[in-house]
Amino acid sequence: MKKVAIGIDIGGTNTAIGIVDKEGNIIVKDNIPTPAHGDIDIYISDLSVAVKELIKSVKLLNDDIEILGIGIGAPNGNYYNGTVEYAPNLSFKGVIPFVELLRSNFHDLEVIALTNDANAAAIGEMIYGGAKGMKNFVMFTLGTGVGSGIVVNGELVYGHDGFAGECGHTILVPDGRICGCGTPGHLEAYCSAPGMKRTAFELMAHYNASDSLLADRSFNELDSKMIFEAAEKGDKIAQEVFETTGRYLGQGLADTVHHLSPEAIFLFGGPTAAGDYIFKPVKESMEEHLLPIFRGKIKILPSKLKPGDAAIVGASALAWKEIQK
Amino acid sequence: MKKVAIGIDIGGTNTAIGIVDKEGNIIVKDNIPTPAHGDIDIYISDLSVAVKELIKSVKLLNDDIEILGIGIGAPNGNYYNGTVEYAPNLSFKGVIPFVELLRSNFHDLEVIALTNDANAAAIGEMIYGGAKGMKNFVMFTLGTGVGSGIVVNGELVYGHDGFAGECGHTILVPDGRICGCGTPGHLEAYCSAPGMKRTAFELMAHYNASDSLLADRSFNELDSKMIFEAAEKGDKIAQEVFETTGRYLGQGLADTVHHLSPEAIFLFGGPTAAGDYIFKPVKESMEEHLLPIFRGKIKILPSKLKPGDAAIVGASALAWKEIQK
Repeated sequence: MKKVAIGIDIGGTNTAIGIVDKEGNIIVKDNIPTPAHGDIDIYISDLSVAVKELIKSVKLLNDDIEILGIGIGAPNGNYYNGTVEYAPNLSFKGVIPFVELLRSNFHDLEVIALTNDANAAAIGEMIYGGAKGMKNFVMFTLGTGVGSGIVVNGELVYGHDGFAGECGHTILVPDGRICGCGTPGHLEAYCSAPGMKRTAFELMAHYNASDSLLADRSFNELDSKMIFEAAEKGDKIAQEVFETTGRYLGQGLADTVHHLSPEAIFLFGGPTAAGDYIFKPVKESMEEHLLPIFRGKIKILPSKLKPGDAAIVGASALAWKEIQK
Repeated sequence: MKKVAIGIDIGGTNTAIGIVDKEGNIIVKDNIPTPAHGDIDIYISDLSVAVKELIKSVKLLNDDIEILGIGIGAPNGNYYNGTVEYAPNLSFKGVIPFVELLRSNFHDLEVIALTNDANAAAIGEMIYGGAKGMKNFVMFTLGTGVGSGIVVNGELVYGHDGFAGECGHTILVPDGRICGCGTPGHLEAYCSAPGMKRTAFELMAHYNASDSLLADRSFNELDSKMIFEAAEKGDKIAQEVFETTGRYLGQGLADTVHHLSPEAIFLFGGPTAAGDYIFKPVKESMEEHLLPIFRGKIKILPSKLKPGDAAIVGASALAWKEIQK
């Protein structure tokens, strides 16, 4: 009997669902909108229908399949309570008992577990990716925001209340740029994809760089992929954006190392596609900021999760992890 | 049969030894110099003699005592290997297999374990102090330096290499004050006792504060106790030192919360004797720097370990903790 797990990734506008085997391959997948109507009961009902359809389709492919459980990655997802709490980019208000609500439609599953998307990605890296066999590592996800998941002694760190691992909101620059959360100077305001764009605009302003390949793009047009393409064409501003972003991130990673002394830090997300443009300054800056006892010890690695699949795969990994316990 | 553990605290100039009961009471204690001669064999021999004398004296008091083990707090102490590695303020160079060397004189003890002093203090807080029953907390020790010990899921976090918990060396102010480790802007350069003195000198320079009660003290004379006494007498500079130190520390603690989401953070050391002068701005600043989901949740508490005994008691707690495993 082939065993599989279901991964659900809840984003601000889209919910992705997939059935994933033990090797991290998505067998079938689907999407439903994450609704703006704010009615959780309707959403749970729609989501359950979509999941059951997927299960049906996978059983048509192979009758001898066992569904072990559901793992869910959700903004402000609380592992301990199975709740989604005050998620700013979802229409459901307050504390939503997500696992309990979903459980009412899936009585027979051994596991339904939930955490936030970055924690799910860290578990994905541990179960399917480059962190197999590692007991102490940290995952940083660089995207619209910066998320993180921390693993200590082989277990994800949820902290006292289920919300540990918000390293994107550590302070890099006191009184610095305003973060999406409203507080100045957070790592996310510098090292997310929008943070790179902000750096590009600061640098163009600083150098009065009308000859930059980025100079004809509006603030709303420019994205981190364009910056990468310009860097590849030799654009000095774009190259300095990567250098600056890497230096900021390296500083932040050094703080994480001083807390946790991990074997490796994995970077995931769009900006990491730029390879050495980002990894080189990150490593150099981290090393400079480290105490001597940590220098040369900590690996900075690209995630081995496939970009398009990572959210579903990471969420499904939570189910595998629970079953191992 | 009464069970006791031995605690050894290795400082730069002094080694303190004590025999401690399950409630954290020191039954007998002694001191030997931490030598400057750099000969580890002589030191281990002297230390072993002193420990054996203490065991003898405690057995004279009560014949029915069982010595369970030795816990050692040492600078750059590596829990995994039982080594002291490149400790900058000790005369022993390189990697010293401390536990192995001591073990050759104490074959019959169930446990000999070693970690750094701040980790030992955290375990002390967990076994004897205010963190009894807590599964997720962090200890900050404010003294000549700033140490920290992190507890996750009831276990101390040692990280991949045994050296986790160096939160004193996270970066508060990029390109800020030079830390004792040589790097700019570390928390320790602002929130240690010497850091408070540096803040006092900055503030006197800023305000040209010739009327401050601190203005007749040289840089080498001034200490954090004098600053506290001046604050109590209404000295504005001294009061602003506490306010500033507290604000810096609160910023650093917010970073720690964003990593770990602990139930509580314990503060230990000389500066904490100032009570609300330090705790109030620490709490306010931490809250300001936290994401909304963490606000109002994390306790900032004074350590319940007795200042004079904490180093020995913390070290002995490591032995109790090992025996529990």
